[in-house]
Amino acid sequence: MVDLNAIASGVNSVWVLTVSFLIFFMQPGFAMLEAGQVRAKNVANVLMKNMMDWCLGVLIYFLVGSGIAFIAGGLTSSGGFSLASAFAYVNNPDDWVNWLFGAVFAMTAATIVSGAVAERLKFKAYLFYSIALTAVIYPVVQGFAWGGGLLSAGGYLGQAVGSAFGVAGGVGYMDFAGATVVHMLGGIAGLVGAYMVGPRRGRFDKDGNSVPIPGHSLTLVMLGTFILAFGWYGFNVGTQASVLSVENGAFQFAGATLGRVALNTTLGMGAGAVAAALTTTYLEGKPDPLFTANGLLAGLVAVTGAVPHVTWFGGIALGLIAGVQVPLVYRWVVDTLKVDDVCGVFCVHGSAGAIGTWLIPVFAVSGFSLAQFTMQTLGIAVITVWTLVTTYLIFKLADVTVGLRVDEKEEHTGLDSSEHGIVAYPEFVESFDETGGGSPTGTADGPALADGGENK
Amino acid sequence: MVDLNAIASGVNSVWVLTVSFLIFFMQPGFAMLEAGQVRAKNVANVLMKNMMDWCLGVLIYFLVGSGIAFIAGGLTSSGGFSLASAFAYVNNPDDWVNWLFGAVFAMTAATIVSGAVAERLKFKAYLFYSIALTAVIYPVVQGFAWGGGLLSAGGYLGQAVGSAFGVAGGVGYMDFAGATVVHMLGGIAGLVGAYMVGPRRGRFDKDGNSVPIPGHSLTLVMLGTFILAFGWYGFNVGTQASVLSVENGAFQFAGATLGRVALNTTLGMGAGAVAAALTTTYLEGKPDPLFTANGLLAGLVAVTGAVPHVTWFGGIALGLIAGVQVPLVYRWVVDTLKVDDVCGVFCVHGSAGAIGTWLIPVFAVSGFSLAQFTMQTLGIAVITVWTLVTTYLIFKLADVTVGLRVDEKEEHTGLDSSEHGIVAYPEFVESFDETGGGSPTGTADGPALADGGENK
Amino acid sequence: MVDLNAIASGVNSVWVLTVSFLIFFMQPGFAMLEAGQVRAKNVANVLMKNMMDWCLGVLIYFLVGSGIAFIAGGLTSSGGFSLASAFAYVNNPDDWVNWLFGAVFAMTAATIVSGAVAERLKFKAYLFYSIALTAVIYPVVQGFAWGGGLLSAGGYLGQAVGSAFGVAGGVGYMDFAGATVVHMLGGIAGLVGAYMVGPRRGRFDKDGNSVPIPGHSLTLVMLGTFILAFGWYGFNVGTQASVLSVENGAFQFAGATLGRVALNTTLGMGAGAVAAALTTTYLEGKPDPLFTANGLLAGLVAVTGAVPHVTWFGGIALGLIAGVQVPLVYRWVVDTLKVDDVCGVFCVHGSAGAIGTWLIPVFAVSGFSLAQFTMQTLGIAVITVWTLVTTYLIFKLADVTVGLRVDEKEEHTGLDSSEHGIVAYPEFVESFDETGGGSPTGTADGPALADGGENK
Repeated sequence: MVDLNAIASGVNSVWVLTVSFLIFFMQPGFAMLEAGQVRAKNVANVLMKNMMDWCLGVLIYFLVGSGIAFIAGGLTSSGGFSLASAFAYVNNPDDWVNWLFGAVFAMTAATIVSGAVAERLKFKAYLFYSIALTAVIYPVVQGFAWGGGLLSAGGYLGQAVGSAFGVAGGVGYMDFAGATVVHMLGGIAGLVGAYMVGPRRGRFDKDGNSVPIPGHSLTLVMLGTFILAFGWYGFNVGTQASVLSVENGAFQFAGATLGRVALNTTLGMGAGAVAAALTTTYLEGKPDPLFTANGLLAGLVAVTGAVPHVTWFGGIALGLIAGVQVPLVYRWVVDTLKVDDVCGVFCVHGSAGAIGTWLIPVFAVSGFSLAQFTMQTLGIAVITVWTLVTTYLIFKLADVTVGLRVDEKEEHTGLDSSEHGIVAYPEFVESFDETGGGSPTGTADGPALADGGENK
Repeated sequence: MVDLNAIASGVNSVWVLTVSFLIFFMQPGFAMLEAGQVRAKNVANVLMKNMMDWCLGVLIYFLVGSGIAFIAGGLTSSGGFSLASAFAYVNNPDDWVNWLFGAVFAMTAATIVSGAVAERLKFKAYLFYSIALTAVIYPVVQGFAWGGGLLSAGGYLGQAVGSAFGVAGGVGYMDFAGATVVHMLGGIAGLVGAYMVGPRRGRFDKDGNSVPIPGHSLTLVMLGTFILAFGWYGFNVGTQASVLSVENGAFQFAGATLGRVALNTTLGMGAGAVAAALTTTYLEGKPDPLFTANGLLAGLVAVTGAVPHVTWFGGIALGLIAGVQVPLVYRWVVDTLKVDDVCGVFCVHGSAGAIGTWLIPVFAVSGFSLAQFTMQTLGIAVITVWTLVTTYLIFKLADVTVGLRVDEKEEHTGLDSSEHGIVAYPEFVESFDETGGGSPTGTADGPALADGGENK
Repeated sequence: MVDLNAIASGVNSVWVLTVSFLIFFMQPGFAMLEAGQVRAKNVANVLMKNMMDWCLGVLIYFLVGSGIAFIAGGLTSSGGFSLASAFAYVNNPDDWVNWLFGAVFAMTAATIVSGAVAERLKFKAYLFYSIALTAVIYPVVQGFAWGGGLLSAGGYLGQAVGSAFGVAGGVGYMDFAGATVVHMLGGIAGLVGAYMVGPRRGRFDKDGNSVPIPGHSLTLVMLGTFILAFGWYGFNVGTQASVLSVENGAFQFAGATLGRVALNTTLGMGAGAVAAALTTTYLEGKPDPLFTANGLLAGLVAVTGAVPHVTWFGGIALGLIAGVQVPLVYRWVVDTLKVDDVCGVFCVHGSAGAIGTWLIPVFAVSGFSLAQFTMQTLGIAVITVWTLVTTYLIFKLADVTVGLRVDEKEEHTGLDSSEHGIVAYPEFVESFDETGGGSPTGTADGPALADGGENK
């Protein structure tokens, strides 16, 4: 007797580990993308926020978050839960490859926010938010959508929609790899954070008109975008975690699904970038590199929930829509909402994720289903409301405890100097102000880069 | 009964997807390599060209290019073709993993050219060329060499050489992973483009002597080179796409081939870099980092077609030859041809690819074969002529329609400002001229980085 | 009959090749990490050292090093050896995938050292050391620990410890993926090199107090750190090279081991960064980004030997200890030893590797074993003594032949100009001194970047 399950486990484990590493690699993608969009005096701060997202996040998510996801799933379905079973993974090595696979998604949600609130949010306030997102805010949505909870076919809402439309077994929310569960959640959290911390000084003039504050390196933006796209292949294609499965004693090979997911991921990113380039050419007369990069990412976000469900034409269509809306929604956030979302995380992750996931039934391989479309609408609404409310409360709590915002002088000098006592490019950028914040041999108010602890 | 084919498909799909992602990652490798070799005022432009290569390219290659490859294969062999079968992949999800595997090679060919024509070719002209390469120029060569066409054992030329040398079944052109099909094609296209657009202003003095125009960041060059080498493992080793195959009801494991391919890739890159370092030390007295990086890449190019066919000694030899010729061929292109090939794509991809592929029979594991050597010579000639003629026509067509070159003022100000309305490093580089092209708050003649559409 | 071994070979080969590529990618991780920590005038030099480590290293390791490892293993155990069998891999393609897997570990050890001796060690002296490390110093340790030699259960020391503690079959040194075999070796070699070449001019004032010399780009440091963490997943998880194995005609699936290794790698890096951030906040009042990045890496180093052996709690504990000791050991090296270890390679790779490997029995899944603890202590001592003695001799030999250190003027001008005739960022950094070392059109004493060989 040949052990088919061992073979499937072997093949699938190699695949899941490989894609988990790729998804982890999205962390420097976000770090570079965001670093490029801030001024040189705030680079180290945004990089530190990205690094701590991951490093603090994995500890929190292992000790708390993963268990919360199980609980959220059980509480909002007939499944129920026990604390012991929810946290059983902590002591079960057989679960740990899958735990890592879950963790890289959780930390992607967390890291999106640092781009929105860059250049003025306190480091401590950021850690406070980051812990809350990793421990509770994201895991609850994970449990709702992927853990058999509220939005699943067997969850209370999935069952209700099933009853309403006469679909036996309920209707499950479709979000394959997390266009809303991960990206829209991050995009909305970023918007809330940027709103609550207020715009950077100088971002709007005294008449309320926006004044651009260009980032310090478009090269880092493009590098980060490409790294993200590379990791995204893990994110989307890897979510088809079973390459081989065993059913009734025979192998099922997921080749066609893998193909569709890989193709739609590719076409979605291509279409997103092309659409953003064309849109900015229409609006500004010239193709804008930053918006084009953001269009590529928005195209990826838009198809992330849809990749196995839609036709290749649908993949292109979702990418195009996502790319077109990037500059438009960005302007709306800045000019109408007056929110200073530094890296445009709402238009890239928030609105693109919502639109792409909402339209899955329109481009579905299986044809349009009103029941599914209803479920998509409700699912997006549930995640939006949950994220708005919880992130508002968390940032409010951070505000009244550690405070949200660095003071005026610190913002002027730069957060690298005021929050970390360093300058990122001591040879390239002269001191940012008369306090000597950028001198090559260290800073006036903090220890020097490589000789921190001495003589104090 | 155990389904051996399902097992092989599972293992091979994990492998092919993983290496396809790695090959995609060569895109930022090229982007960083080229960005580092241009001046700061043209960085965004070259990055945009790289990004659009991929993003526009995948759409074109899915809708047109892949089908053209099938047609080119069928037309130049006794195979024949039908439009329906050539484009059948468009509607067959089982083909889409392989489509992606093909696409990443096509887009590698496309992206090589941007380095040759950097700092003065119009963005629109570049897109025009890029579409043509992805739709027709590359797919035809793909069909010739890998699609059962002209250069295959069953193609018209392969059959003719077989007849001439008395080899039953014909003689197929050997180019395992695309040293000529991908790299030489790109290198020649780049040379043609650089010739037709003319040298950058100031590249040659009034006596016709070359004047160096150093790129703005050697660090980016080195980062790009390492990223390319990483992706190249996917390119070369992954071309052995079958890890397990099923023959006569039993598994064949390709371990020895995988080993040879991995070893020769490694030794080829090592030898290429060492040879270029020694050659520049001999010529200049000091090892040159840029030529060493290019030697590493030329070593990789040289073995790309040869990796499963040659001995390890052959892998080292090809790498050494490729590394030595890099500075020599570079000087010949600049000093004799008077062509301003900014990133040296001809010496790295063109001549290195030709030499490495031509010499396969000399270092072959199976010993020297005159028939094979003849076929190698003819194959290189065919691809060279095809590429020279078609890229000449395309750039000519671009010239008479959208124009090839930015005007003198635009070139002086920089293409980032003139073509995209931005500056890549607003805090680091002062304005490039009196029009304020490099001011930190945007440009005189275009919208600012992050606030494109407002108030116009 | 289904060939189980072919299936296992197929699955394991895909895995081993993938992780080997990831481990190779640690090369640019080190390159960027080190580049960011040196001044702009020495960037190209440190990048060249990194690139040559790999490129020269793979040639040496294929022709010499791998065979030396076999010999060292056989000589220090009852196994014995023959030259023919030690070098049999050179002609056996079936061994070459595993050769590459070994080579990426060897070259990781080699590349660590360039960070310690940056900004003043001669390029030639570095190559001399690099060849010696790749040919002999590292391979001997590899043979001792992983090649059945001295430190293995069957090696002379492993047998002796077994006899002393009454453990039948001997006691093998535990260092799963090379916390000491690779990292501590590199860290100690770096310390020896930095000691022998002496501190950079200006690193200590005339009273012997240290004066910080900040690196030129914290962004590169963070990018390099993230790239290293990505590659480290290959390094640690991939060392569990058998995903499927065949025992008594049935499959064994290593899922639980893979899970433990992946989890401990993740928790170790997280804990290392968090601990370093907290420690620097305690010492300096602010979390230091550079030490945090180094804490992340030290956490990874500390668990590298331990990942399959310790509990998840142990993984966190080792990471925390490693992170706390980074700034403390760094200060001790600088202030007490007065050694100018530019990138802190001793505290990150040396002490962290020793501590993490030494404490494996304390946090072992199987409980504490005094025999194992003794073996760990002896193993660390053996590797430390071997590395100290051999690297001292090599650097001494380099000193009396090619000389260790550039002269005062060269150090002042920068090694990029004096050793390679270029400047890395011609548009950003003005000339470093009156000789024109940083002029945009090349250097006073060397050929220009892209036009090396002309007119001389």
